[in-house]
Amino acid sequence: MIKNPLILVTNDDGIDAPGLKALTEVMNEIGEVVVVAPDRPQSGMGHAITINSPLYLREIKNNNFTYKTYTTSGTPADCIKIGVNEILKVKPDLCVSGINHGANSSVNVVYSGTMSAAIEAGIHGIPSIGFSLLDHKWNADFSHIKEYIKIITLKTLNNGLPKKVVLNVNFPNVIKKEIKGIKICRQANTYWIEKFDKRKNPLGKNYYWLTGEFINNDKRIDTDEWALSNNYISIVPTQFDLTSEIGLTKLNNWDFEK
Amino acid sequence: MIKNPLILVTNDDGIDAPGLKALTEVMNEIGEVVVVAPDRPQSGMGHAITINSPLYLREIKNNNFTYKTYTTSGTPADCIKIGVNEILKVKPDLCVSGINHGANSSVNVVYSGTMSAAIEAGIHGIPSIGFSLLDHKWNADFSHIKEYIKIITLKTLNNGLPKKVVLNVNFPNVIKKEIKGIKICRQANTYWIEKFDKRKNPLGKNYYWLTGEFINNDKRIDTDEWALSNNYISIVPTQFDLTSEIGLTKLNNWDFEK
Repeated sequence: MIKNPLILVTNDDGIDAPGLKALTEVMNEIGEVVVVAPDRPQSGMGHAITINSPLYLREIKNNNFTYKTYTTSGTPADCIKIGVNEILKVKPDLCVSGINHGANSSVNVVYSGTMSAAIEAGIHGIPSIGFSLLDHKWNADFSHIKEYIKIITLKTLNNGLPKKVVLNVNFPNVIKKEIKGIKICRQANTYWIEKFDKRKNPLGKNYYWLTGEFINNDKRIDTDEWALSNNYISIVPTQFDLTSEIGLTKLNNWDFEK
Repeated sequence: MIKNPLILVTNDDGIDAPGLKALTEVMNEIGEVVVVAPDRPQSGMGHAITINSPLYLREIKNNNFTYKTYTTSGTPADCIKIGVNEILKVKPDLCVSGINHGANSSVNVVYSGTMSAAIEAGIHGIPSIGFSLLDHKWNADFSHIKEYIKIITLKTLNNGLPKKVVLNVNFPNVIKKEIKGIKICRQANTYWIEKFDKRKNPLGKNYYWLTGEFINNDKRIDTDEWALSNNYISIVPTQFDLTSEIGLTKLNNWDFEK
């Protein structure tokens, strides 16, 4: 393993999130840590980047920190871009994102700011991992998953990751002794049925809140949803080359001339 | 083909974009059109969804339109969610997104609001296509690509798409007679080197504008970037199951106990 690896840490719940603190504490045991996180929660931001407005960047000085900490006015993906290019000015040895307060398993990976940060780092050729705990609460208990985060991180630093692959790690919301172990998984085939809660604002104008029901009809037992509902930690090796091999085969048989 | 298919049209450049108008005109020749588009440009929004603030929805009444048109205060992905669940209340037969003013080829697919709308529709099980022209200008000429959009759309309606696959279609920025045809492609392996333009605001506070240089070191000739730079229209069959098969094989050999 690289001695004292340089580790860029970010998240999508914002700089004040307890999940970020827990993740930073683990990374601090492994290498040299620099935190660059959004200045406010950015859940559901997907892979948004800030191109039509300016980005603000601020260093947070705290004598109790052994690592440098910055916040930006941008999205998780922005944090990686500005972190690598403007703050570090070198590629870090690893990027970690999270610990997200809530699941980023199955289809939720596409909406996830946490995973978009990890993917953005992957695009830059940096080994990277997104960590999420299936507990939305702000005061969720991350203490018992820290040792697993350390194990997965050290394995990643030692073994490296395949090119253009990042890791999507989710933890079941159970106490330590109920965790059965780690499973390498496929992304489950799931979706949301949206419900829009229609309300009137004080001026009488209609507005909608997005809510939804999560639907998992995937019966396979090698998926992240299966692992999590059976108290395993799920790791989905996640790629950002979205080319569909089946799609290539099918579409090459289409005749556009006719 | 389904008779008079119901077609949901959206984009990420916003309701006023000429690219949306061009796409709507083509779809109007094919089936029953409903437009649900963001009320302002949403480029670079990736797969962001609005979960922490309310969504506004407004019907635009215009007697010259033969189709219904709505705008939302949300992202392209929001437009699909509210379009399907609150406006149509049935699954449309097709969703199209665009025509984007600018490329969504190669790695840009992950930042693209246009493609996120198409992917969101795909998650809902709706055949869907994102269209983009490699011309950022607001007054880009879309007239000569309309016939190709019609051909690709009709093929999609006739043949259907593989499950969990949507199409990412990009048009080269050349005049009609220089277009060499349509190629089914892989997503090229590219990235951006970011540059942050550092400035001071009127109050003396530093801010940054994200700019970047596009890097394509992919030498393969079956990619979208190759096709586009050789004046072909590129179609990448695009999936939202991000599981990496190579990643599964490699990680299954990791021993987390040691």
